[in-house]
Order: sequence, then C-alpha cells, then structure tokens
Amino acid sequence: MATNDLVQSLEKVSIKPSATIIHAETSSPARWKDALTASGSAPASFELIKTFIYKPKTAKTATPVPVVVIAREETETNSGAIGKKLNLKELRLASEDLLTEFFSLDKNSVSPLSLSESNFSRVLTVLDQSISSSSSTFAVHANSSSQTLFLSGKDIESYLKKLETADVKVQELDFQALSTAPAAAAPASKSVAKEKEGAKIEGAVQIAIGVKKELDFPTWYTNANMLDYYSVSGCYILKPWSYSIWEEIQSWFNTEIKELGVQNSYFPMFVSQSVLEREKDHIEGFSPEVAWVTRAGSSDLEEPIAIRPTSETAMYPYYAKWIRSHRDLPLKLNQWNSVVRWEFKNPQPFLRTREFLWQEGHTAHLTKAEADVEVRQILDLYRQVYEDLLAVPVIPGIKTEKEKFAGGLYTTTLEGYIPTSGRGIQAATSHCLGQNFSQPEMFNIFVEDPNDGSKSYVWQNSWGLSTRAIGVMVMVHGDNQGPGASSARSEHSGVIVPCGITAKTTDEQRAQINNACEDLAKTLKKSGIRAKADLRDGYTPGYKFNDWEQKGVPLRLEIGPHDLAKQQTLSVRRDNGVKNPIPLANIGQTVDALLKTIQSDLFARAKEQYDARVVEVTKWEDFVPALDNKCIVAIPWCHTEACEDDIKERSGRAAEPQDERAPSAGAKSLCIPFDHSRWTPIEPSKTKCPACNMDAKHWTLFGRSY
Amino acid sequence: MATNDLVQSLEKVSIKPSATIIHAETSSPARWKDALTASGSAPASFELIKTFIYKPKTAKTATPVPVVVIAREETETNSGAIGKKLNLKELRLASEDLLTEFFSLDKNSVSPLSLSESNFSRVLTVLDQSISSSSSTFAVHANSSSQTLFLSGKDIESYLKKLETADVKVQELDFQALSTAPAAAAPASKSVAKEKEGAKIEGAVQIAIGVKKELDFPTWYTNANMLDYYSVSGCYILKPWSYSIWEEIQSWFNTEIKELGVQNSYFPMFVSQSVLEREKDHIEGFSPEVAWVTRAGSSDLEEPIAIRPTSETAMYPYYAKWIRSHRDLPLKLNQWNSVVRWEFKNPQPFLRTREFLWQEGHTAHLTKAEADVEVRQILDLYRQVYEDLLAVPVIPGIKTEKEKFAGGLYTTTLEGYIPTSGRGIQAATSHCLGQNFSQPEMFNIFVEDPNDGSKSYVWQNSWGLSTRAIGVMVMVHGDNQGPGASSARSEHSGVIVPCGITAKTTDEQRAQINNACEDLAKTLKKSGIRAKADLRDGYTPGYKFNDWEQKGVPLRLEIGPHDLAKQQTLSVRRDNGVKNPIPLANIGQTVDALLKTIQSDLFARAKEQYDARVVEVTKWEDFVPALDNKCIVAIPWCHTEACEDDIKERSGRAAEPQDERAPSAGAKSLCIPFDHSRWTPIEPSKTKCPACNMDAKHWTLFGRSY
Repeated sequence: MATNDLVQSLEKVSIKPSATIIHAETSSPARWKDALTASGSAPASFELIKTFIYKPKTAKTATPVPVVVIAREETETNSGAIGKKLNLKELRLASEDLLTEFFSLDKNSVSPLSLSESNFSRVLTVLDQSISSSSSTFAVHANSSSQTLFLSGKDIESYLKKLETADVKVQELDFQALSTAPAAAAPASKSVAKEKEGAKIEGAVQIAIGVKKELDFPTWYTNANMLDYYSVSGCYILKPWSYSIWEEIQSWFNTEIKELGVQNSYFPMFVSQSVLEREKDHIEGFSPEVAWVTRAGSSDLEEPIAIRPTSETAMYPYYAKWIRSHRDLPLKLNQWNSVVRWEFKNPQPFLRTREFLWQEGHTAHLTKAEADVEVRQILDLYRQVYEDLLAVPVIPGIKTEKEKFAGGLYTTTLEGYIPTSGRGIQAATSHCLGQNFSQPEMFNIFVEDPNDGSKSYVWQNSWGLSTRAIGVMVMVHGDNQGPGASSARSEHSGVIVPCGITAKTTDEQRAQINNACEDLAKTLKKSGIRAKADLRDGYTPGYKFNDWEQKGVPLRLEIGPHDLAKQQTLSVRRDNGVKNPIPLANIGQTVDALLKTIQSDLFARAKEQYDARVVEVTKWEDFVPALDNKCIVAIPWCHTEACEDDIKERSGRAAEPQDERAPSAGAKSLCIPFDHSRWTPIEPSKTKCPACNMDAKHWTLFGRSY
Repeated sequence: MATNDLVQSLEKVSIKPSATIIHAETSSPARWKDALTASGSAPASFELIKTFIYKPKTAKTATPVPVVVIAREETETNSGAIGKKLNLKELRLASEDLLTEFFSLDKNSVSPLSLSESNFSRVLTVLDQSISSSSSTFAVHANSSSQTLFLSGKDIESYLKKLETADVKVQELDFQALSTAPAAAAPASKSVAKEKEGAKIEGAVQIAIGVKKELDFPTWYTNANMLDYYSVSGCYILKPWSYSIWEEIQSWFNTEIKELGVQNSYFPMFVSQSVLEREKDHIEGFSPEVAWVTRAGSSDLEEPIAIRPTSETAMYPYYAKWIRSHRDLPLKLNQWNSVVRWEFKNPQPFLRTREFLWQEGHTAHLTKAEADVEVRQILDLYRQVYEDLLAVPVIPGIKTEKEKFAGGLYTTTLEGYIPTSGRGIQAATSHCLGQNFSQPEMFNIFVEDPNDGSKSYVWQNSWGLSTRAIGVMVMVHGDNQGPGASSARSEHSGVIVPCGITAKTTDEQRAQINNACEDLAKTLKKSGIRAKADLRDGYTPGYKFNDWEQKGVPLRLEIGPHDLAKQQTLSVRRDNGVKNPIPLANIGQTVDALLKTIQSDLFARAKEQYDARVVEVTKWEDFVPALDNKCIVAIPWCHTEACEDDIKERSGRAAEPQDERAPSAGAKSLCIPFDHSRWTPIEPSKTKCPACNMDAKHWTLFGRSY
C-alpha cells in the first residue's frame, strides 16, 4: 500500500493522525520514544505499539495463515498462550520471506496499518483489548519505519474493523488475563516457554519495537550490526563488528601459542570417507552431522567426500608419516579454519551454527607428563581470552566421562554462565587424547623411545576455541541497549562525536570541531586505541549516540565548541553512563586507563553475578528450585554415570510438568572445577551425593546449558 | 624383500658390495654424493644412479605394467622418447600407491635392488646401456634410503639378468642415442615434452635422486617441507613453512587495506543453487568446477548446496540489503577464506588446487571514478606483495576482453614469469565489475543519487590474491638446492648453527657455544628478525647446513669456538654462498641490513632475468621461436579476439608438430602493460599487428602460461 492509498484508507474511516514524523528510527523502544519526543512534532504524551507476525505449524502443502498480533509495547505476549487461546499449534515468529509475501514490507516497517483489504482476509488479526479501550495516543509506523503516525486506540480499532469481512473478524484478546492465568498455575513453565520462543527462531524476525535481550538475541545481533542471517539455514554472516573481535582473539592467541612452539598450518577441508571413519567412537559422535560432497560440476564423484567436522582423522595419517623419531617430537600444529557440523536442531547465531570459525590445535608428545602440562597451558590461554580480552568470567575444570570428547582420554573445559537465561555454556575445551589415536590399529604413530629403544606410541592433545566466544561475550555483557561489548573488543573502542553544531554555527566553527574530532581520533590511534571520529553528515548527535551505544562501543567522546575552548572532551562510559570531561593533553594515556577501568569493571560485575549464581546444594529438594532460580548448582557428587543420567532426567521432568513441547531442560554436569576451595571439604564415606545418596567424590557443577 | 634376503640374492650372483653406508639421505644428488664421500667408508670414486617408475596409459580395468627405468644420474631420460621406443602410450611418473603396490616401498627407497623374483615379471625393466658397459662403481640404495651399497655396472646388470624369465627380459637402451636423435629433428618439441612430464604429475613421485627443479616441483616442495600431498586428490597440506609466508602476506595486506577503509568479515562457505546461478555469464565460468553438498549425516538435502568457488553471488544479495543510501557507500569488505574449484585437469601444488586459500575483496562505490581508483590501488598493493615482500618481479597491465573476469567490466592483472619453464603466470587480479551485478535483474543494488535523486546503481570491484603467490615465489627463486625463498619470507630468515664441536670439546665449551647461539637468536628476535638456533643433538653441522639450505632459509650464522673468542659469527648467504664474519656487537642492525641486501639482490636478479626474456617481436616468423626460447613476447597488437584465437592456435601448432599428446602450448595474451615506454611507439594506421597485419593498437604481451 503506497502512502497515498493509506491516507485514503484512513480518511474512509474518518481517521486523522495527530502528527506525522519522519526519521526516528531505532530498535530500542525507549530510545525511539525519546527520539520522537525530541522531534518536537509528537504529541505531548503517547504510547508505543508492537506488532508481531507469527506462523502456526502448517502442513507443507498448505498456505499458512499468519497471525498478526498488535499489542501495547509493555503488554506481555506469550506465543504459547496465544496459540492455546486460538487453538493454533506451535506459533513461531514468521520468516522474512513470509513478511514479504503477505505485506511486501520488511520487518521494520510492519505495523497495524500494513493490514489492508488485500491481505486482511488471508491473516488472523489479534488486537490487544487494552489498546481499543485506552484513551492514549499511540505511535504507529506507516509502512516505513521512517514514518510515524499518532493515532488513538479507537482509531486503530476502527481502521481494523473497516477491513473485516463476513468471514474474517478482528480478534480482541485480554492479554493481561492470558499472561497471569497460567503463570499462577505453573510459574516454572512460563519462563521456559518464553525462553523457547526466543530459542526457536530460525531466520525469523521480530518486529521492530521491543526487542528484548532475554527473548531474542538473534534479532538483536542483527540490529547491532554484528551479523546477518544467510540464505542457507544455520549459516550466518559475520559482519566486521564481530569479525574484528575474532581477529583480536586470533592475534593474541597466535602470539601466545607461538611462544609455546606451536606452528600454524592448513589442512584441506575435505576428508575421504575411509579416513574419517577410522576411529569409531570418534566418528560416532560426529557422523550424524557430517556434510557430504557427492558431485562436482555435473559429474558424480566416485566416492562421497566429507567436509571436516574437526580434523583429527584428517591430520593424523600425516603425523604418522612425519613423526619418524623422538627428535620429531613434540609436533605442535594449529589451524585457523572453518568446520561444518550440519546440526538439524535449533541453529543459533554464534552458539550453534552449521559452519563455524575456530582454531584447532593438534600436538603429539613423547610422554603423558608433557601432554598433561600442555593441556593445562592451553586451557589457561583460553581463560585469558575470556577473562582478560572479553571480560567474561569462566570456571575451569574437567569434564565427566560422559561429557568428555569422543575418543579422547580426558577433557578440560571452561564453563561460562549466561545471567539472562541462567544457563551454563561450554566456552572452550582442551583435550588429552591419550594414546588412543596413535595405536597401531588407528593411526600408528610411534617412535623409538630414546632411553630404551622400545616402541613408544605418542601422546596427543587437541584443543579448540570458536567464534562462540563472541556470542558468549555479547550475551554476558549485552543489555537492552545493544551488545555492550567489553572495552578492548568492540570494532572501535572509542568513538568521537562532534556536538553543539547548530544552525548558527559558522562553517569555520564546524570545520574546527570536525578537525578536532579527527585529530583526537588520530592521537588515540597512535596510542594503539581503536578510535573513530563519526563525522557523518545528516545525522544528529543523538542519532549517533544511540547508534554507537547499540553497537556496544564502550566509550564515547564528545567535542563541542565549549570543549574546544577548554581543550577537553566529554567522556561518556557505555557501561554505566558516567560522564566526565577530560583534558586533551595526554589524552592517549587517560583514555587507555579509562578503557582498562571499564574493562575491569565489566569483568568484576560479571564475576560477581556469576559467583552469586553458583550455589552449593547438598539436598536434592534444593536442586531444581536452584536451577529455576537461574543458578548453577554445585553438589558433592558421587561421579557415576547412572547418577548423572538420573539427575538430567529428574531435573528435566521436575522443571516443566505442563509443557510437553519444551526443550529438555534437564541439568547436565558442566565440570568438576579445579578449584573447589569455596565449598565444604568432602569427607570420604561421610559426605553423600544429594542425588543418589552414595559417597560423594568431587564437588561438581550441574546446570541447564546451551 | 628384507635386507637378509637381499644379501642372499646378491650372493647368488656372486655380488659383493664394496661398501655399505648408513644414513646419507638427501634429495640433492650432488649433496648426496658429498655426504657419501665425507662418510669415509665410500669408495674413492663412484657415480650416482637414478631410478624412475613410469606408468603407461592403461585401460581402467587392466592391471598396469609399470616401467622401471634405471639410468646414470647425468643421463637425460625423456619419457616421451622412452614411450615411443617401447611403443607404450603416455608414460607418466607413477603414483605413490602404485609404488607401494608393486614394491612395498616408499619413493625414497626404490632402487634397482627393489626388483626381485616376486615383482620382476610384473614390470618392464629398462637399463641404461652405459651402466652395464661402465667400469665405474655406482651408489645404489638397498631398499631403504638410509642404506647405500656400492656396486659395479656389471654387478647391477648381473643382478637384474638373474631375475629374467623365459618371457620377461631386461631391456637395455642407449639413452644417449634416444635423446639426441629427436632433438636434432625438432629442437622445440623436446623441451615441451620435458616440461609436460613435469606438469602432468598428479600425486606422483619421482624417485629420490636427481629431483630437478625444472622437472618436478611437486617432489621438491615435499622434500623442502613446504607442503605434503593429501589423500583427497588435488588438495595439499600447507605445512608451517608455506603457511608462515601466507601469514606474512596476510599481516602486511591487512594493514594496507584497513588504511583504505576495507573491513574484514566472513560469509558462509555455502551458496544456495538459486543464488549461485543468478548471474549467467559469471556462473558459466565456474559451474563445471562447483562442488555440491547433497547429503548431511544420512539425510539427503532437499536442494544441493554449492561450496563457494568465489563469493560475488553469495555476498551481493546482502549488499542490496545493507546499501540503502549513498551514505552507506563506499562499502568495502574483504574475506580471508578458502574456495573450492573442482578442476579435473592437472592439479598442481599452489598453482592449481581444488581448495585454495585467498582473500577476496568486494567493494561498492557511488561512481565509476571511485571504483577505477580503487582497482589500481589494490593492484599496486598486490605488486608490493610480490615485489617487496616476495622479491618477485611482475608486470601490471590490463586483460583483454577474452581473458577478463567472467561477468566483469575490466580486469587488471599482474603477470609473472617462471624462468625455468619460460611461461607467464597470472599473479593476482583486481576487477572492476562495473554495474553488471548491481542491475535490477541481477542483485538490484542502488541508492538515490545525492545530487539529483535519480536511481543510481552502484559500481563494484572485486579483487583476489591466493596462496598461488607462494608457488610463484618458490618457482622464481628456487634452485636445485631447494626453495631459496627471498629473505623476508621464509619460515625463518636466519638460522644459527653451533660449529666446531669435536670429541675434544668439553661440556662447558659446548654449553658456551650453544648458549651463544641461543642468545644470538634472542637478540635477533628482539630486532624483529625471525631467527632460530638449531641446537638439535645428533646431527652434524653439515647435515644442518644442508637441511636449512633446502628449506630456503636465506641466511646462516655459524658460531664456533673461534667465533666465540672473537665475539663474531660467520654469516653465509643462501643466495650466493658468500661468507663473512660479522661482529656480535650491533648484530640486529647488521643482520637486518644484510637480509635487506639479500632481498634486493634476489629481486634485481629476477628482474633482470624477466626483462631479458620479454622480447619485442614485430614479425610473425620471430614469434614462435621466441616462445621456444622461453620468452614472453611483446607485439604491437590489433586487439581483436579473432586474432587472439588465431595466435593461440598457430603458436600451439607451430611449436609441437610431432607430438599430438602435448598440452596446448599456444600463446595466450597475458596483458596489455600499463607501461609500454620501452617499446617503439605505435603509429596509428602505420604500425601493423604481426599476426594479422591489421592496424596495431596496443603493445600486448603474449606467452605460454600456467
């Protein structure tokens, strides 16, 4: 519907918008409201509206009937409850394709006014009762996110009613009743269902206003310009914002491993079937996810060729060839590459993607002692990546037998924690493979022992860190305003915005301010700070502030005429909003120190949050409530696999008795932390495992996880 | 055949080796000989033998009969001539698999003594007549490259004759007659056939001794520890040696493009079929080589998914999405990734591989003028990579219409030259795509023109540099002794070897020398020089010298007791063998300067060589002889495609009248050089094209090429 047609439609039902605003676009409702208010032409008081398009589960051959939900910004909408009320199965946020098909609009532009005679009868329209009954004025997009109209609740209702046909009517729902009723009955299931709504999105979009971090990381990543969805499902584009963080990690980690004598190399992405399947335990873990190339050009290949899911089996035949003598040991190679694991369940940006970037280190040693040392050295490097570079606290430990790497001897791990979901997340792992892969029936990698001349099979390690790290960082430090990256690891660590330029500013003054910004950026760059002067024309300072906040740049520096006169800049911290003028003299050092403070503050806050959520549990009845309270649980554990399975089963069932569609939210073992000093020491044959009452062996962390 | 069996076999024909030597392994015949001589237990004078295994063209269902050629090291063996003589088609060097099948030996261990009763009748044995008739002693491997026997020519003949059966006899050939006869008749075809022998190798090996750079780069790369063959044909492992050069290129190029405002990012390796096939001209160029994923785990995919052969079509749908306003321009993204082009013809390490690493830059601009400037800026960065980093001279120019990038507007290129083959090689290209990909029927990428509000389709460029660069560097600077990398770009630029340690050296003295080497390495590293102290036990200095020479480390520094006393080190240049003692004081600066001198000397030599081989030709009759003389030909050209096709056809036919199996060695246009100042200016309608006699337009380079 073109704007002219829209105006005519409105006139038909005697609607006159109280104002039209151009250009107040932002994905944050609070900011959007501020921006509209600031524009001067908005009404004195108004509310925001959100519009979601859902698609119910539909037979593949049938045309879906999308559900358009129009609600007040602060109304809680729960797709499970809506579906139940409407008797529709598995409502999911609609894909962008579907939006285009039904509304010829992108996600930022869909609003109640996108409904027209041509599409109304093909969708199911649901209106928040509290809109039609309200006397407020509402801000509504008019088929373009850059155009906003102000309408009363009644006007919106009239507009929609006008579109009704004999068969198709607007459904008005009391969302408040909808959201409180089941909540009283089953407090646990509500949050699970909400989480799930967020987790289930694949190539989906949520409509502009009201993107909440807790619900919808994917949309939020896109808005923040970190990544974009891609036409092949489960694959994502890493935009410069997130790729630059990966480059920082690469650069730091490369320096460290080179110090340890590790060399970089590159092995082909293809693995022949016979090589891939050499290690049975190992391949069992990966085979359901392997992508196979069977055709080149128009010719079928004689044998299908796999794309590596990891490179143990691709590399080790050559280790056998290259390692001829103990003098060739240790052999320490690393690769930066991408691997493919074609998971069919719930791809999620950064966390679970079909192709992902990582490094994989593969080393061979003469002795177990040497291999053991390296496993821990690497794990500690990973800890530094998370804690020092990304300001993300992690707990190092060892995986249980059940959770260790397929085919390895033992696995060490870093476990992170996502406060908004209360879930644990595996951050990086460093495995000792033992002598499993070097055995004669496997890859047969041996040397003559230099001491006694005996055949000595090599001890191997493998270790990997992936772009998941970026996702973890953002989930830990992000907020409703954007990714809120830690200081050192955003695309820019400081952005400089010229301010105070008005209609009265002379060209000369403007040039002076802009030059000062440019100069400041140059000075900071010389001190090794990734600074950027944002001199874009045609955008207000407010727009720029919001833009960079969303992108998570940790420090903003403003320069206006007043600052120029005083030879200072106004610094504004992204993490806590604190403003402080700082002198331009010695600015490199000052900003560097300030960034370091921001970084350590971020880490301290996140650490405090994590620590507060790791709770000691010694009675089973406290276990599930602690999980439900978004905690990681430490128990004195018996270390038996049967008990581990049982814990998962019981904590899963207990958590979600009502909702059979919810993902299994049973608690898995996360790790046996190396440091258990904070818990009461286990007394042999006295301390009991709270899950099975057998003798406890180690303090072990359990939690719901990604 | 175990060594004991071998001894028995020799005894049967009354052969007693005059000496047995262990451990004198090297791929260079000259060095091997030196090492044997130095061992002390070798005869006073002896000659070397080479053994090649060829496979003739055989029906797929038939068992091949390998041809074992045993010749003196200096005998010229020509597979074409041997094949003709024996009436066998297309002799090719045998694959490693075939060696294992017939001899149960690796390539380094095959020798005349590998022939035994169990395999003799299954192969065709060809013996150099000049061996059996010689009175020399020959050094022969005894089924292990670490064991060398010394036998007379007669002994070798007797050994082989003993294996003869009623049906299968040893063939003795007069190789000298073989190689001189056709040479007189067709001088051109000989070198072509020899080149071909080298070029045709796929996963093939040439037997240990006598690996000549001209013939057999692949084996030579492997020996030099640069790469290894891989179980998936056409794919190669980049070992640390070559990968470290790639890292150097990445680091330098990243800094430069970031200065130009280019940002790194990562797009998925997968491309959906519909997106891939959007641009017809473009995909026509790539579709025969696209690898398709059709299965994941055990499930067939609904639609096959391509692995990117290049990313234009994968990226540009998102350019259309992201570029909404002229303020979003220019958009400049780059990726470091790998792409797959499943070529079926002659994979070659570095030059033609099914998967290769590269960077691909993709930029969008408001105006053609801006795009034009960037195309040349990037081309000049590529020139600096080749000339300044790798010391490889290149000629920048523009591709003809016939040779430009599929779907682009024009292509600029750097053309290199490989002296040993006399061929040109495309080194890197920077394309202006014009507005082809941005058109509405293509990816529809436009903005409103900021001046007049008109719809303005963006101007796009794409540009790429691949790991081929490493291959070119090595082919230009390598010699029979190894890759001979240019100074700055070997894995190490300087290696420090402790010398003068004898049986009389005390432990303390030895520790002093080793410490001095370690200290020197540390000092050099502090000056940013990639130095390494080679303190390996159990290897002689001579072994180490040879090892590092083979690996192409440009500078060797020796420290012995004498040097220690004088606080100096003996420097030895890899490129010219010049030795000079240099004081340890201020060593960082001295070595840095020396490395720079080596680098510029290498470049100057290669440039002189290239310049000397670019010849001006104005008469057709000089054209093919110039090609045959390993030259690149500059002609004043008419710039018509028909003439270009004709030149290729005629220069191909003319060059190899006798050999219908030779690869098309017709000359292609390489480029129209930007700088044509060295040639006689073209006079409009006076200067004629020597190929078709039409009016000449531009000086254009033609040559045989890779």
